[in-house]
Amino acid sequence: MNLDRLLAPRTKNIKSSAIRELLKVGTQPGMISFGGGLPAPESFPVEIIPELTEKVLEKYGPKAFQYDRTEGFIPLREALSEYCRKRGIPADSEHVFITSGSQGFLDSIGKIFIGKGDRIAVEAPTYLGALQAFNAYEPEYIQMNTDDDGVLVSSVESVLKKHDIKFIYLIPNFQNPSGRTIPLERRRAIAEIIEAHDALLIEDDPYGELRYRGEHVPPIKSFAPDHVVYSSTFSKIFAPGLRVGFFIAPEAISKWLILAKQGVDLHSSTISQALAAEFLQGGFLDRQLEKIVRLYKPRLEAMLGALANDFSDGFKWSQPDGGMFLWFEGPEGIDMEKVYFKAVENGVAYVPGKFFFTDPGDGIETIRLNFTNIDEGTIERGIRILAKVMRHEIRT
Amino acid sequence: MNLDRLLAPRTKNIKSSAIRELLKVGTQPGMISFGGGLPAPESFPVEIIPELTEKVLEKYGPKAFQYDRTEGFIPLREALSEYCRKRGIPADSEHVFITSGSQGFLDSIGKIFIGKGDRIAVEAPTYLGALQAFNAYEPEYIQMNTDDDGVLVSSVESVLKKHDIKFIYLIPNFQNPSGRTIPLERRRAIAEIIEAHDALLIEDDPYGELRYRGEHVPPIKSFAPDHVVYSSTFSKIFAPGLRVGFFIAPEAISKWLILAKQGVDLHSSTISQALAAEFLQGGFLDRQLEKIVRLYKPRLEAMLGALANDFSDGFKWSQPDGGMFLWFEGPEGIDMEKVYFKAVENGVAYVPGKFFFTDPGDGIETIRLNFTNIDEGTIERGIRILAKVMRHEIRT
Repeated sequence: MNLDRLLAPRTKNIKSSAIRELLKVGTQPGMISFGGGLPAPESFPVEIIPELTEKVLEKYGPKAFQYDRTEGFIPLREALSEYCRKRGIPADSEHVFITSGSQGFLDSIGKIFIGKGDRIAVEAPTYLGALQAFNAYEPEYIQMNTDDDGVLVSSVESVLKKHDIKFIYLIPNFQNPSGRTIPLERRRAIAEIIEAHDALLIEDDPYGELRYRGEHVPPIKSFAPDHVVYSSTFSKIFAPGLRVGFFIAPEAISKWLILAKQGVDLHSSTISQALAAEFLQGGFLDRQLEKIVRLYKPRLEAMLGALANDFSDGFKWSQPDGGMFLWFEGPEGIDMEKVYFKAVENGVAYVPGKFFFTDPGDGIETIRLNFTNIDEGTIERGIRILAKVMRHEIRT
Repeated sequence: MNLDRLLAPRTKNIKSSAIRELLKVGTQPGMISFGGGLPAPESFPVEIIPELTEKVLEKYGPKAFQYDRTEGFIPLREALSEYCRKRGIPADSEHVFITSGSQGFLDSIGKIFIGKGDRIAVEAPTYLGALQAFNAYEPEYIQMNTDDDGVLVSSVESVLKKHDIKFIYLIPNFQNPSGRTIPLERRRAIAEIIEAHDALLIEDDPYGELRYRGEHVPPIKSFAPDHVVYSSTFSKIFAPGLRVGFFIAPEAISKWLILAKQGVDLHSSTISQALAAEFLQGGFLDRQLEKIVRLYKPRLEAMLGALANDFSDGFKWSQPDGGMFLWFEGPEGIDMEKVYFKAVENGVAYVPGKFFFTDPGDGIETIRLNFTNIDEGTIERGIRILAKVMRHEIRT
């Protein structure tokens, strides 16, 4: 069959990313992988599932298995209303909407806002899954510069001055891939600029709850409620396999997002949503967050300790207070994609940072390290190997 | 916030359909509704969920809650390979792919094939959910004519001769909304025409298993495997709330569909998929199908009986052998959207058929009747009321 003549123009934009092919090399058994972005499976509260299931059947019966409204399962929206209020986002249950993970949210955002060639402002570096969702709608990306505290206020401002921007996309807490968090004052300044330009911010917050030290910082949404769409997910605080995310948006935007979602999947899995509702309503969240912090905090500390131990001048890395990732930078000129193959030969995988930039040629000397899915001892071993590989690379 | 300048051009195409507003009128408590398309909640095998959950936890543990590959949960794909083989579609497990319900499949189809203004051939009438999925990608629809045996072979042929068609969309079994089934010989003829024109057919089969009389007819996919993408779902044979569908396609097409889906939702709910896998592997399907037939067959018979009883000359209706819907046609000139409001005033709701046509002005005198979600007595009562309302309408 001659397929080429049938494919839509956009389809060439959703092509498989080079990164996937690259990462396949790093998945042999025995590999120490800092490459993925998976939560630790031992963090999932599998032991409470029978109890949650029983409660779901008791409370909702067949309703938990029926078609449901696109907006989301009402008991879950009610529980999330309470959850969001406690986190600085006052929202009635009818203003909280459920998505099929954060990815489902990002797809709907792309669908309703992005026409071919429209400009989207993203952090440099930014989250790959967002690019993948948006790419299908054929945007042009404008990069915003960052430092150790995330996106620069001046960069947000100059991008909005120079370009017609459909929306700004940010992950303010423990960003993927950089692990950086935007501090309070910078959030306030960003909120002001966005309001002044009547611009739209997509605030993606999958990692906010995974804080291992310091204080929670209020979402930008809380400073500019009418100009921010806030989204989060159960993937990191319960389990990603549920595919349950949620968002809170200005009403006119929610309406469009829900209409878009209706055409995409009618609604998210009712049983997943019902389990998530019982998880919140049954008070399991706090216990689960404690468990995750107990598990991930020593892993982050092990990685930071090993890096300080094994790397010297010329290398630097982020000091995340939470989340799942750490951003690592080698001396100028080092090509971390090349080093990747050497590292994999020596049994360690990571993600070369260049893939998180939308401008080609950027981030050659950077890498993303995940620390949530391997134990402390293996992290230390892996960093030692990585240090050896890189020292050798620099010398040659 | 000035939203209009931010919305993509496509977004006006995903506007809320008039039908939703219309149906809201028909949802007051006490209404006899032939309007929805819901399976009967009492058909869901809620009683086996604790057992299925236990098995899922025992066999897969945390894996049932982790991120999974976009292609689908492997045990489910394995079980579906066997399921499809028995139904005339030989496919290895690596050629069966999971979607977030049929809707998720239809969205990906739209995404990879439809560019603005591209032509899609659909039955007149056709499935609303498909139109909603495709609309976001801005196609032009070409209607194909139908009779009591579904789409006309001559219409398929002339559409392919006259137009550049991206794909043909058909529901060959117990079509929504018409309840019609395309007979064997017509399927063979359609397969031949599609092959001769090197055209692509999307064969959507959500209702095939809900047969209450007669023999199963093999899917068109079995006659033209390289030119047909076949899709089905667990929504009608297990529970729609799981949001689990699946498809089998020529390999080059599957690749694009999976890449599109990756950007849309990463993957479908793992726990939903694991439950569906256990449902098939545990041998629960046959028992469940018996239960459904036992429940729905008398309802269809009650509706057919009541129609024969209460309606006379000038009215006709389809004689479905299965599925969930029956297609009803009044005498020329009767406007079933107008009658709808009268019917609702009298306590009965349905869907005016015109909404299932893509050419405006078609189907004014038709309606869709659902018979799966109300018991026999209520069906008889509802049809009696409907007959009275329509007789009155014709006289005035």
